[in-house]
Amino acid sequence: MNRAALIREIQTKKSFLCVGLDTDPHLLPEHLKNHPDGVFEFNKAIIDATKDYCVSYKINTAFFEAMGSKGWEIMERTFAYIPDNILKIADAKRGDIGNTSNQYARAFFETLGADCVTLAPYMGKDSLDTFFKYPGKWGIILALTSNPGSADLEQQKLESGEFLYQRVISEMNKIGSAENLMYVVGATKPQEFREIRKQAPEHFLLVPGVGAQGGSLAEVCENGLIDDIGLLINASRSIIYAGKDENFAQKSAEEARKIQQEMATILALSA
Amino acid sequence: MNRAALIREIQTKKSFLCVGLDTDPHLLPEHLKNHPDGVFEFNKAIIDATKDYCVSYKINTAFFEAMGSKGWEIMERTFAYIPDNILKIADAKRGDIGNTSNQYARAFFETLGADCVTLAPYMGKDSLDTFFKYPGKWGIILALTSNPGSADLEQQKLESGEFLYQRVISEMNKIGSAENLMYVVGATKPQEFREIRKQAPEHFLLVPGVGAQGGSLAEVCENGLIDDIGLLINASRSIIYAGKDENFAQKSAEEARKIQQEMATILALSA
Repeated sequence: MNRAALIREIQTKKSFLCVGLDTDPHLLPEHLKNHPDGVFEFNKAIIDATKDYCVSYKINTAFFEAMGSKGWEIMERTFAYIPDNILKIADAKRGDIGNTSNQYARAFFETLGADCVTLAPYMGKDSLDTFFKYPGKWGIILALTSNPGSADLEQQKLESGEFLYQRVISEMNKIGSAENLMYVVGATKPQEFREIRKQAPEHFLLVPGVGAQGGSLAEVCENGLIDDIGLLINASRSIIYAGKDENFAQKSAEEARKIQQEMATILALSA
Repeated sequence: MNRAALIREIQTKKSFLCVGLDTDPHLLPEHLKNHPDGVFEFNKAIIDATKDYCVSYKINTAFFEAMGSKGWEIMERTFAYIPDNILKIADAKRGDIGNTSNQYARAFFETLGADCVTLAPYMGKDSLDTFFKYPGKWGIILALTSNPGSADLEQQKLESGEFLYQRVISEMNKIGSAENLMYVVGATKPQEFREIRKQAPEHFLLVPGVGAQGGSLAEVCENGLIDDIGLLINASRSIIYAGKDENFAQKSAEEARKIQQEMATILALSA
């Protein structure tokens, strides 16, 4: 899915919401815990209920890997179930030497059919450049995350005066463009968010941390919204675990719709 | 597998060789390319042929993920096939916020039965600490890699005077010990290798880049060998693709044995 199609989808739905599928078998509603295909049935119900309110799903690979090959098989079916007008993100944080990254790109873009994969930048440009050679596919590189550990390395200042996360952006801007490269930027650091927007003025930013982790949607939009929108706001647990009983999907739809409506208001005000 | 057992295994076999299973279905010998279970049969034959010459296998998850859920299933059977006296490394370069890393730890240590998993440090200590809470299991954190891209971030100097990879080690030393934490250090940078040994005097270092990538075994040992050995030297392609026909496993055994004998000599000289 290319940038133009993504922006069209955002404008049609008046939403830049990404729903995160961090599906934990232990947190399923009771009636699905005992279902032989409960995890997939859960994902399917969430997708059916929320697909009109979001423009993207982000599948957290860890939760499926924890179930082994059976989990990968559920992940494959989940990706296949997502409608093609919705951006499919594999949240996998991969990155390795070139030969190995080629295999990861094949795994996510070809075998699994994801549009995007999240990437960890530590090993440098040549560990990630292969992900930017697939037309219509995106690499989403970790820049500044909202966990406390982001102080350990990401927010360290370099001799050059840049913070490490700024160096990540200036380096990685060389291997991708606003057409195929996004950055992960946490919602909880408004000042840094504004600085990052200067370094990546046209790029989409994937933003976790709104809601459960304490970031404010209005504040993120104030600091990050551009003419082409340029934001994907992720919410995972607050949407998919909004309800606990047979009515769970309806609760998720309500939660997603609430965020979509807030986004519609913001888009109307900024137009 | 704990440190004492690993050291015992090294002393018994006079080897600190790790064989990397980067199994690419396109590079199998002809007779296995057409075999319905060719990738597993290949892994099995390589393990049978080399297990007396190595103390560890490192399974590169990317190559299996590229085959989808079928690949994960082959990876599961491969892990199960490795004898228990041999250290099983999942080379997966994982790392994410705590909730997600818990799932990765479960995936690799519980579901897959690996002894070790390689980890990417970018998101900081709280993204990796869960991996050090499993008795007898190891986290192997990227420090300094041998690809050209290591100059982009890893070798950047911080305002504090440290290089980034040195900061990684000083920070990560806080969440693990020489009993459960190793570092990945490429073989191609001898001077940096000596410095890293000072920061991690007791830790095992997992060293790729000997052979195919141009690093010298003797030089790495000169800079990194400690009383408890403290080195695992990985070779992947040079061993597993040593032969191309029905005789391939024999060729791999010869290649592994050649390295083992060089290691035996080094151990005898250093004793």
